[in-house]
Amino acid sequence: MRLSQFHLHTSKEIPADAEIISHKLMLKAGMIRKLASGLYTWTPLGLRVLRKVEHAVREEMNAAGAIELLMPSVQPKELWEETGRWEKFGGQLLKMQDRKEAWYCYGPTHEEVITDFARNELASYKQLPVTFYQIQTKFRDEIRPRFGVMRAREFLMKDAYSFHLSDEDLEREYRNMFDAYCRIFERLGLQYRAVFADTGAIGGSASHEFHVLADSGEDAIAYSSGSDYAANVELAAAAAPAPRPAAGEQMRRIETPTQKTCEAVAALMGIGLERTVKSVAVVGADAEGAPQFVLALVRGDHVVNEIKLAKLAGLGEYRPATEAEIVEYLGSEPGFLGPVGPAKAIRVVADRDVAAMADFVVGANEAGYHLAGVNWGRDLPEPEVADIRNVVAGDPSPDGQGTLALCRGIEVGHVFQLGRRYAEAMKCSVLDENGKAAVPTMGCYGVGVSRIVAAAIEQNFDDNGIRWPEAMAPWKVAVCMINPKKDASVAEAADTLYRDLAAAGIEVVLDDRGLRPGAMFADMELIGIPHRVVVSERGLAAGTFEYRARTAAESENLDRAGVLARLGV
Amino acid sequence: MRLSQFHLHTSKEIPADAEIISHKLMLKAGMIRKLASGLYTWTPLGLRVLRKVEHAVREEMNAAGAIELLMPSVQPKELWEETGRWEKFGGQLLKMQDRKEAWYCYGPTHEEVITDFARNELASYKQLPVTFYQIQTKFRDEIRPRFGVMRAREFLMKDAYSFHLSDEDLEREYRNMFDAYCRIFERLGLQYRAVFADTGAIGGSASHEFHVLADSGEDAIAYSSGSDYAANVELAAAAAPAPRPAAGEQMRRIETPTQKTCEAVAALMGIGLERTVKSVAVVGADAEGAPQFVLALVRGDHVVNEIKLAKLAGLGEYRPATEAEIVEYLGSEPGFLGPVGPAKAIRVVADRDVAAMADFVVGANEAGYHLAGVNWGRDLPEPEVADIRNVVAGDPSPDGQGTLALCRGIEVGHVFQLGRRYAEAMKCSVLDENGKAAVPTMGCYGVGVSRIVAAAIEQNFDDNGIRWPEAMAPWKVAVCMINPKKDASVAEAADTLYRDLAAAGIEVVLDDRGLRPGAMFADMELIGIPHRVVVSERGLAAGTFEYRARTAAESENLDRAGVLARLGV
Repeated sequence: MRLSQFHLHTSKEIPADAEIISHKLMLKAGMIRKLASGLYTWTPLGLRVLRKVEHAVREEMNAAGAIELLMPSVQPKELWEETGRWEKFGGQLLKMQDRKEAWYCYGPTHEEVITDFARNELASYKQLPVTFYQIQTKFRDEIRPRFGVMRAREFLMKDAYSFHLSDEDLEREYRNMFDAYCRIFERLGLQYRAVFADTGAIGGSASHEFHVLADSGEDAIAYSSGSDYAANVELAAAAAPAPRPAAGEQMRRIETPTQKTCEAVAALMGIGLERTVKSVAVVGADAEGAPQFVLALVRGDHVVNEIKLAKLAGLGEYRPATEAEIVEYLGSEPGFLGPVGPAKAIRVVADRDVAAMADFVVGANEAGYHLAGVNWGRDLPEPEVADIRNVVAGDPSPDGQGTLALCRGIEVGHVFQLGRRYAEAMKCSVLDENGKAAVPTMGCYGVGVSRIVAAAIEQNFDDNGIRWPEAMAPWKVAVCMINPKKDASVAEAADTLYRDLAAAGIEVVLDDRGLRPGAMFADMELIGIPHRVVVSERGLAAGTFEYRARTAAESENLDRAGVLARLGV
Repeated sequence: MRLSQFHLHTSKEIPADAEIISHKLMLKAGMIRKLASGLYTWTPLGLRVLRKVEHAVREEMNAAGAIELLMPSVQPKELWEETGRWEKFGGQLLKMQDRKEAWYCYGPTHEEVITDFARNELASYKQLPVTFYQIQTKFRDEIRPRFGVMRAREFLMKDAYSFHLSDEDLEREYRNMFDAYCRIFERLGLQYRAVFADTGAIGGSASHEFHVLADSGEDAIAYSSGSDYAANVELAAAAAPAPRPAAGEQMRRIETPTQKTCEAVAALMGIGLERTVKSVAVVGADAEGAPQFVLALVRGDHVVNEIKLAKLAGLGEYRPATEAEIVEYLGSEPGFLGPVGPAKAIRVVADRDVAAMADFVVGANEAGYHLAGVNWGRDLPEPEVADIRNVVAGDPSPDGQGTLALCRGIEVGHVFQLGRRYAEAMKCSVLDENGKAAVPTMGCYGVGVSRIVAAAIEQNFDDNGIRWPEAMAPWKVAVCMINPKKDASVAEAADTLYRDLAAAGIEVVLDDRGLRPGAMFADMELIGIPHRVVVSERGLAAGTFEYRARTAAESENLDRAGVLARLGV
């Protein structure tokens, strides 16, 4: 592409409404333009990148045996009523009425439509297993669209749906799609993690999220330094602690007149925070459903994980205890709570690390006092034990290999085992080997195609702009010419190099706009072209071109063969 | 592609709601499935064809220098209010409100959005001329969606928009896009015509429609046997007739008691219909705007063209005359009207062919009588003369080359010179060479990508199904195997041929579903694969394959080299 025949429109200004770096850089580079809240036009430059992602996704889906189709974006209300989601989906569902006053929505996802397709198309077990996918525009009416295409309302998504008679088949295809997703992100050149995910509202039995790693990511991820283990921090299991040491101290009362936190008590006592225990008072339900007061204990340097806690019996819908309840059950105001000698019988749940402690410090259930040298079995009964804390950096990995590190990620893919929920609700069945109707089990597999573009920038940028991985770059190479009007041989040599590279199958752009070198280089760096070759009068005299990789600090003067070698020709 | 790993689902039944052949065949072949009124899922088979069209359109647009971008499908009301089309566009505009109760529409076209993009992106004459395009999903809320994807509500369209400072630039790009459209339809292997079009509601100064020719087409087209001339019948110019012969008869009254039509009078007199003249009474406006009675005359075998008539002075908004007006001005009831001796002074407009007649027959303005042997200048004044008739087959082409034939066509593309209407309404301007703000003139260029698929079928089918042009076929070649389970060498030979063809870059499908030959062949014919190669035990014994082109009446037994030659390998 000759840039004079393209529409490139970069900008020096930092747009006021752009909060994150990818949004800023996409606007500065002129990749997207806002039409309205959460609605963006992909400019010619942006679309080149979007198509790269789309192409990679399509090729890997095809290679994995998924079959592409294309469903309408506008979907009738009746289908969504069959699954109960017309109401349940909430405000993100953009609803509309046609001229006959029939209701439709702009599809935010296609479970209903594909299940309707399947119940009409699939009649026999011989047609299973099968995986359909599409790459298509979706709409979700976000409460607060922001971050450019990272959380746009209209966006491009790859959504796949698989149908199986047996759970084993579903698991096999789930793994197949999982592997395909890994190949997608690998070939795009992105650092990513597949993490165990909470299945949340969609339900189903297994789920992984694929995250592009970036400091600006909304999700906290724990991953092992020594294995593939990765999980959302909310779900990551804490490794089992070392066995409890023997008691070494006697229990004693410590005066802590104003010390209401573990940090303050540890500082007063001059001990490590990890020797204190935090008591969190909540109310769940007992076996009969009556309110049950529960004291959840984690180490002073740990944080209670609400999702883990809620998985315990009776705590599915727990709430924080009120101050009145705390006074009633523990006999003390908050700030000095502890499991020793409560006013009434209570349920005590200790995190595994707390259960493995000896000689620890807890609140005394008396204003102004804590207890030190506390030991299980001696000073209070052995507790109910469970993993109820967030993992922290340095924890051993739960799979026993390496230690956990924390990072942030941007969710760009998600694979689910949906099960039979949609097929049952929509009466989708096929005849099995015995001629009996069987409800298929389903998987669904999504990739946020447009979101990947923004996520890749969050992971790959510097002060000068975007640093595209080669597979996502709008062009692999930029050929720039210095003062072509002064010396016709410069334009000629640049044009020859440009045509030679293009003929060799390399995606190359020739910057023939006639800008001065500084502006030209700034543009090529801003839009993130991985390789730059500069043709100048001086270079030609020396028989060299100035080559620079986008990620390199310095340029090199190389002859033609050297440049071609750098570009892998 | 191995068909066992694809989702092919053909059907023998003719769907009840399908009226036209393309709709029937697309459903029977399993190319599309209806989701709701005017909403269709493109199955894997259908999508393969749709992508072929999309690919051809994209390549030709790129080759023509147009630059691809992607605009949102959801568009804010405010932009449509700037051009006044929020109300004017009518019921086809699907409107919706988001969660903040702001109004949007599902874009049926993108003039507003691209002009908004242009006013923000284009600042200088140096950025012009430029042509942007997108291939994108549109929605038009048709009153009566029907004919499958031929008139669906949600459909795939290529829309391009060009911006220019001068009318000359616009005309040059219009020609460039016109030529690109010709290349698109040529490479798709479709018979088409580019016809002069009425610009209708969109306005602008020049417009052509591109029609795929098919007997079932909604539009009547006149085209020359000897040149590129083609026009909608409504707009096609009639060639100038031969000069008027000298008068040879005296005017005489003919008794026509029940003969109220030219056909009846000609039959009674035993003369050709082309010797009679039809009188059509309408009312227009005179120079002062007062109602003016007009008698429009065309030959008995011709039809008045309402669009041509309405282009004459005073007839822009003409209406049929009432019977009372006819009696007042002509003194006769309808059925016996004529231009000779009216009761009051009237305006007479004669078609050019009528003005060139001598000794003709007209109504006598007296119930039960006609006049024969009528001649201009002698029996009545010379008339006002204009081309006011529809052309008919056999007319000389108006460009003087060949004669006109009539055919029917399906509109699949349209190019317009829009002018400055949108740019002016939306205050889009750029700085010209002198630094002054100038409003650009625009062109717009649409192709109905999904509609082309249906139109191609209307042009290419037989009793057994679709006959795809090679460029649009889901696969170019089908390899079929007979009784593979009986003889392993059949499956092996078929697989080898399949892999060899695929390796040679040919799009080939292997029918390995294990159907009996009749069902297999019927499927491959129904879905329209251009070339079929059958591998059988008997053939292998003789060293041959059975080859048949989809358009051929008979099969041929060919050796491997012969098959490859037929496939162009």
